[in-house]
Amino acid sequence: MRFVDIIEKKRWGQPLTETEIHWWIEHYVKGELPDYQVSALLMAIVLIGMNVEETFALTMAMFHSGATIDLSGISGVKVDKHSTGGVGDKTTLALGPILAACGAKVAKMSGRGLGSTGGTLDKLESIRGFNCYLDKETFIKQVDDIGIAVIGQTEDLVPADKKLYALRDVTGTVASIPLIASSIMSKKLAAGAEIIELDVKYGDGAFMKTADEAEQLAHMMIRLGEFCGRKVSAMITDMNEPLGMAIGNALEVKEAVDTLCGRGPEDFTELVLTGAASMLHQAGLEPDMQTGRRMAKEAIVNGSALEKFKAMVKAQEGDVCQIENTDLLPKASCVTPLTARKSGYVRQAKALELGRLAMEIGAGRERKEDTIDPAAGIVLGKKTGDYVAAGDVLAWVHHEHPLEKEWEERLYDAFELADEPVDKKKLIYKML
Amino acid sequence: MRFVDIIEKKRWGQPLTETEIHWWIEHYVKGELPDYQVSALLMAIVLIGMNVEETFALTMAMFHSGATIDLSGISGVKVDKHSTGGVGDKTTLALGPILAACGAKVAKMSGRGLGSTGGTLDKLESIRGFNCYLDKETFIKQVDDIGIAVIGQTEDLVPADKKLYALRDVTGTVASIPLIASSIMSKKLAAGAEIIELDVKYGDGAFMKTADEAEQLAHMMIRLGEFCGRKVSAMITDMNEPLGMAIGNALEVKEAVDTLCGRGPEDFTELVLTGAASMLHQAGLEPDMQTGRRMAKEAIVNGSALEKFKAMVKAQEGDVCQIENTDLLPKASCVTPLTARKSGYVRQAKALELGRLAMEIGAGRERKEDTIDPAAGIVLGKKTGDYVAAGDVLAWVHHEHPLEKEWEERLYDAFELADEPVDKKKLIYKML
Repeated sequence: MRFVDIIEKKRWGQPLTETEIHWWIEHYVKGELPDYQVSALLMAIVLIGMNVEETFALTMAMFHSGATIDLSGISGVKVDKHSTGGVGDKTTLALGPILAACGAKVAKMSGRGLGSTGGTLDKLESIRGFNCYLDKETFIKQVDDIGIAVIGQTEDLVPADKKLYALRDVTGTVASIPLIASSIMSKKLAAGAEIIELDVKYGDGAFMKTADEAEQLAHMMIRLGEFCGRKVSAMITDMNEPLGMAIGNALEVKEAVDTLCGRGPEDFTELVLTGAASMLHQAGLEPDMQTGRRMAKEAIVNGSALEKFKAMVKAQEGDVCQIENTDLLPKASCVTPLTARKSGYVRQAKALELGRLAMEIGAGRERKEDTIDPAAGIVLGKKTGDYVAAGDVLAWVHHEHPLEKEWEERLYDAFELADEPVDKKKLIYKML
Repeated sequence: MRFVDIIEKKRWGQPLTETEIHWWIEHYVKGELPDYQVSALLMAIVLIGMNVEETFALTMAMFHSGATIDLSGISGVKVDKHSTGGVGDKTTLALGPILAACGAKVAKMSGRGLGSTGGTLDKLESIRGFNCYLDKETFIKQVDDIGIAVIGQTEDLVPADKKLYALRDVTGTVASIPLIASSIMSKKLAAGAEIIELDVKYGDGAFMKTADEAEQLAHMMIRLGEFCGRKVSAMITDMNEPLGMAIGNALEVKEAVDTLCGRGPEDFTELVLTGAASMLHQAGLEPDMQTGRRMAKEAIVNGSALEKFKAMVKAQEGDVCQIENTDLLPKASCVTPLTARKSGYVRQAKALELGRLAMEIGAGRERKEDTIDPAAGIVLGKKTGDYVAAGDVLAWVHHEHPLEKEWEERLYDAFELADEPVDKKKLIYKML
């Protein structure tokens, strides 16, 4: 088999066979195919697409490219969730403990943030001492014992995705439904859970720009998971404005804790409760969504979800005092309010730009090797649909260094005001 | 400027600016851009295309990426020709001397063959001692003195094309009108001639599969040349069957010499005369195509064209005796006839397969580093439209090693026979 013939085949619009796709991934992981050939094939896939069979073959080839996690030693129903990423997305931190409190076993591997998108590991590491690197045995034991563990993906899992993603990142080949679907699902399959909930985001601050695209991606991932006997459900959610109010690592931990205490932002609480309801139902732990939702709410009200979060933090060597009193989490030296210059209704609090602005003051990384300031970030004062009087706080900026004038202007511009009332954004577009 | 943004821009279908394209080529030639990014951009260009402005910018960026040839020291009208390549294409060997005999100055840089496509340099090197590597001064002096020189492209000319072509060759990104047009025209512009004739081939044995595509490519190249003040014309010609009867290096030199002696194959002679007529007219050496054609014929009849060929061979240290007596050219140990098993009319003598078969017995190279057997090749006995009686020779195979049964069967299959009469192929589809 010559790799150039595989590239040519895709370039002329013909579907690749399972054998060709497996050959590609196997030889690429072994280091036998040059990046310059693989990037050409990736771009052809981006522009021509892949059918379901090809996407399934790619997913399986990646899934089998390295080690997999065997969760069979854990009693109960093993659940996992994945968000396609967005600004202010701290869902795992609140949803995970609720699920654990309701009897599910949450075995979650997470990633780090890049660009405007935050990463769960970075958020957890703003808790003093928190250890994201448990070995497999400890991970499995912790999930079995307390119902939840969140760790970084182990090095040996889906090596094909690591290589491919690094290449896609620098060759303009990230945005592609088959490539995104196979990347996510190969990792979810390798991570071993039986029940998988996907939060597929669309809009300004997401990979998928429209709800339609997000739905296509979700359908593809559901099919891929079901081919492998997993139960997969998906929420299609809006990412035109940040999720919740807080953007930034310690700030988001605080918001997640607030949510577990029943005083979280309305939109974020809604997402967490709906996600929990859906997963508890899927997992067979509750008979329907409605009961699932009630149980999730109950876990907040009776404090059991917060206890699970604290148990996880403790088990992973984090400082539980910072959860009990979130004032003890890392704090920025300056908190500068940004006040509205005129009155009006917020038409949009632009997710992508707010994510970028937060990244630029230290809340995220532009490159993988950048370090993060756990205290830095932006807390919104107003969101889409809110009325703003001149002088009202649009956002609080948590920062270490003086803010540049141009940065402040961009922050103003991230809030688009209208004279007429604007409807609140509907966060959850669809459940699949 | 970040190169990944340029890739993304093209990937989303937006045209690149002149600045972006020049930045790309400049940094790539300097070795500052990795191949894996460039191949992704090339694939995006292949699948999305480039408009005329982008293609012009790319051509100019490549043209200026290295040295150019200054032909102003040569008196008279400097002409050049280029064929997009095909099987049995020895046009330069006959057309060049005719043009020189009619008073044009033929300053021609040629390439080597790869795959089923032969290269003019390889053909000339089947003449004992022939030297394709003159320095620029010697090249220019020879063109000025005797009216013709054919050499290999100098190393310093259009380095961007060398790097890009090597990458395109292994990444499935060869077949693209803007990439082919800019590759050819940057070299033609750098080579300095005022009058350029393009032979754009289509069909089974050509890069362009249809006459329409070939015409699009030709139009693009004409526009690019004219933007730079060159006179460019084009012939759109059929490459579904080989050109002439001979495929193979020494065999093609012999066929070119035969043509210069007035006893060449009908189709090849027609192509050469038409090409010469068009160029002599374009160059202002003859008032119209008709007179041009008469003068070209005259150069064959009075022997002046053959004399020019001999003068060039002599000047480039080749053995003129082999031109005076082509029996002295390299000869294969075996000449095996392939005879028809049944009678019928030739529907097609498949160019691509015949080119490959010839390559496999040593007439061409599969990889750049392969060596060539100058004597090896295939001489057709019949072409499309010819009647064949069972036992008639379809082709003579000139070879060194015993032929494999499977190879012979493929040679049979390269001749498609019909029961009903078949029209002769029309070689020249259009003149532009």
